[in-house]
Amino acid sequence: MAQTLQQLLDATNAVELLRNSQIGSYIYPVVPSDFQSWIREQRAWRDTAVLYDQSHHMDNLFLSGSDAIRLISDTAVNSVATFPVNRAKQYVPTTASGHVIGDGILFHEEEDRYVYVGRAPAANWLTYHGETGGYANLDIEVDRRSPSRPYGHAVSRDYFRFQIQGPAAWQVIERLNGGPLEQLKFFSMSTMTIGGERVRTLRHGMAGAPGLEVWGPYEHHDRVRDLIVEAGAEFGLVPVGSRAYPSNTLESGWIPSPLPAIYTGEAERGYREWLGADSYEATGTLAGSFVSEDIEDYYLTPWELGYGSFVKFDHDFIGRDALEQVDPATQRRKVTLAWDAEDLARVWGSLLDVDGPQYKYYDLPLANYGSANYDSVIDADGRVVGFSMFTGYSANEKRGLSLATVDPGVPEGAELRVVWGEPDGGSRKATVEPHVQTEIRAVVSPVPYSAVARSTYHGGWRTGYREPADA
Amino acid sequence: MAQTLQQLLDATNAVELLRNSQIGSYIYPVVPSDFQSWIREQRAWRDTAVLYDQSHHMDNLFLSGSDAIRLISDTAVNSVATFPVNRAKQYVPTTASGHVIGDGILFHEEEDRYVYVGRAPAANWLTYHGETGGYANLDIEVDRRSPSRPYGHAVSRDYFRFQIQGPAAWQVIERLNGGPLEQLKFFSMSTMTIGGERVRTLRHGMAGAPGLEVWGPYEHHDRVRDLIVEAGAEFGLVPVGSRAYPSNTLESGWIPSPLPAIYTGEAERGYREWLGADSYEATGTLAGSFVSEDIEDYYLTPWELGYGSFVKFDHDFIGRDALEQVDPATQRRKVTLAWDAEDLARVWGSLLDVDGPQYKYYDLPLANYGSANYDSVIDADGRVVGFSMFTGYSANEKRGLSLATVDPGVPEGAELRVVWGEPDGGSRKATVEPHVQTEIRAVVSPVPYSAVARSTYHGGWRTGYREPADA
Repeated sequence: MAQTLQQLLDATNAVELLRNSQIGSYIYPVVPSDFQSWIREQRAWRDTAVLYDQSHHMDNLFLSGSDAIRLISDTAVNSVATFPVNRAKQYVPTTASGHVIGDGILFHEEEDRYVYVGRAPAANWLTYHGETGGYANLDIEVDRRSPSRPYGHAVSRDYFRFQIQGPAAWQVIERLNGGPLEQLKFFSMSTMTIGGERVRTLRHGMAGAPGLEVWGPYEHHDRVRDLIVEAGAEFGLVPVGSRAYPSNTLESGWIPSPLPAIYTGEAERGYREWLGADSYEATGTLAGSFVSEDIEDYYLTPWELGYGSFVKFDHDFIGRDALEQVDPATQRRKVTLAWDAEDLARVWGSLLDVDGPQYKYYDLPLANYGSANYDSVIDADGRVVGFSMFTGYSANEKRGLSLATVDPGVPEGAELRVVWGEPDGGSRKATVEPHVQTEIRAVVSPVPYSAVARSTYHGGWRTGYREPADA
Repeated sequence: MAQTLQQLLDATNAVELLRNSQIGSYIYPVVPSDFQSWIREQRAWRDTAVLYDQSHHMDNLFLSGSDAIRLISDTAVNSVATFPVNRAKQYVPTTASGHVIGDGILFHEEEDRYVYVGRAPAANWLTYHGETGGYANLDIEVDRRSPSRPYGHAVSRDYFRFQIQGPAAWQVIERLNGGPLEQLKFFSMSTMTIGGERVRTLRHGMAGAPGLEVWGPYEHHDRVRDLIVEAGAEFGLVPVGSRAYPSNTLESGWIPSPLPAIYTGEAERGYREWLGADSYEATGTLAGSFVSEDIEDYYLTPWELGYGSFVKFDHDFIGRDALEQVDPATQRRKVTLAWDAEDLARVWGSLLDVDGPQYKYYDLPLANYGSANYDSVIDADGRVVGFSMFTGYSANEKRGLSLATVDPGVPEGAELRVVWGEPDGGSRKATVEPHVQTEIRAVVSPVPYSAVARSTYHGGWRTGYREPADA
């Protein structure tokens, strides 16, 4: 029985392993599926105000000691030259080859104390290097995400973590605070008062409207939540359930789920021998129409995920040498794809076609069926010009949308096609029913999404966008 | 602040109250949403074997003492002339006016000890009459369904309750039992061995394949579940999540959700004064296109729900006088409606129509948006000829289906229309987004469902079925 990720990989091709994982759907746990309905909850973040409960679906990693900042600096593409107490940063670590492992938010909570919040890959990477990198004055504690299927058992965390967002968010916040609250700069931290108690805050926001993330000891979860819901009622605040919640990123443009690029490099062998056979990296699911035997074909650089501006060569970090060789102009870039209504309706309608082909089920509002999702994005010649990586539906836009990374030459407004569904009837993943592939037209659009007119000069869909031969 | 249902009704029209309840969606709690995907889970009950976890979504009411059978007899349309230990019955109580309150299963567990398992309305009715009916030798204990949104808090019940169903169910059962097990008659109770321990069993079955319901102390829930899943693996057993679970009745034909007919009768006033303002009856949601100011228009007789054969006048019971006046031939009857694929796809596609009308969202696999659902079923003249009461999708049939009750003259194969969505843009229910109504063609089909050819002599849909003027 394999004990480590490396032992699993010694026996099985990495792509095979992850494409056929039996772990089931990627779950946003504990928070109820809905409070109203996912459509009303989606609309509320655009129209009024919402409460996101982020207490359960992310790992929290507590880094303390004078060496904590050194560990961060050694593993982040980001500069930590300016990282005072009460500031947060989106932390992006890469492998020695310069490929992204994951990302998350680092909160500088106190002098020599940082909290990483995000998916497991970056938390595991920090933990491994913290343990093995010779950081004498460093203490690391991890509070893992809640179980995916608690099934009636009690769940607890160290912190509750909420966001109050939407056009009316600041009114709710000031009502809670019992008076005006300074808005500060994005990702600045401060405090506010809720129910007579001080809670910590992170200045956040959606679509230009100021919002806050607030956190504190988990034992206050229910009370703080009730107070927010109560204060928000007159402003139309709606608590968002776990069904609608992850689809908010389709409108805001963050890709939560790249495959951690740690399965092959010789430099990461020690890490793979450290990672358990039960880790996220060993059990996670790889889904979608893009299939390559070489798992390195799934790796992405910071530029391809929209993190190019974070890369700063003012410090040494793992991956720096590789990233210094990269010409950003050659890199794919993050876009939103607006899915063609007729093609997507055809996918939905296939559920009712008793004799006809069944396409891959597209769930609403989130259509992903793996922890990492890679659908081929092709041009008119069938050439793969990108990956569609996070897919779903926005009731605010009345469109199917996906977040994708596409070749640098592909212009906004170009019509491409997403290959929807897995080849050969589908993999053995627990989330995959037998199906046939189909192609969905999609228009390259900005991140965050806004509707663009299809570029007329690229012609209709039968020709669509064709990458120049010398691209 | 109203304390009782009657006080609420003194202030508000009952239909208004229930159509605008803010309680949110009717939830099948605690059991994870899915283990694989709802499509694979639906297919497994048709093709291999499934584990249903029914531990959490139903009230259990424990009736003991020598008067228990008298309470049952006094409130059931069913005869209890033959109700020995180790037998179960589907219990159907009615009001004095002969309208159905609810239904559930009564298990005769021991001499003078019965357990009712089902939704709250029949449990509340039994409790009220048990308390007020002068039953000296009767003890009642209730174990309410689990909270809809436990939100990380621990949940417990008195019993775990599982069903093992599907074509391969008996193989799983005998593997668990470590040897052959007598199949007995439907609804007979016995025991079997799981993991060395005796558990109680009810002979059940789906689509002709024998299955079992098993129960025991809740503290054994996790262990028994693990053993069933383990024993079932080689037979293709799939645990069914709470998303797929309630849709199984679309194929088997039981209507779980009639409105309890207790809101008006003078005979039930005492009951309404006893029912709390937080009861199922006071907080439940009434959804759908059929709207009448008179809540009595929602009431149904046993025949209309398919329980006509249970009605036995060999005993006195509440409602007997009224039911004796009913000519069964005049009563609506239970059918399955097979929804037209083109019309249903149009509803789904409206999600993508940026400028066009939005129809009521039809969730998959269950499209209900209330605790009681009444959609008008109309004939070619627009005359309401029935109610569509439980709606969803079967991946086994690749069809939208609903369970309905229709006028006695409507023949199998007739094409009717379901009015989908609420009038005037929709009610204020938390589960209702703004929408417009539309009509869906549907073919009257048997219960349990099997596809029938549309009756050609009723013409195409533009004419469709028209009830004779003298019907």
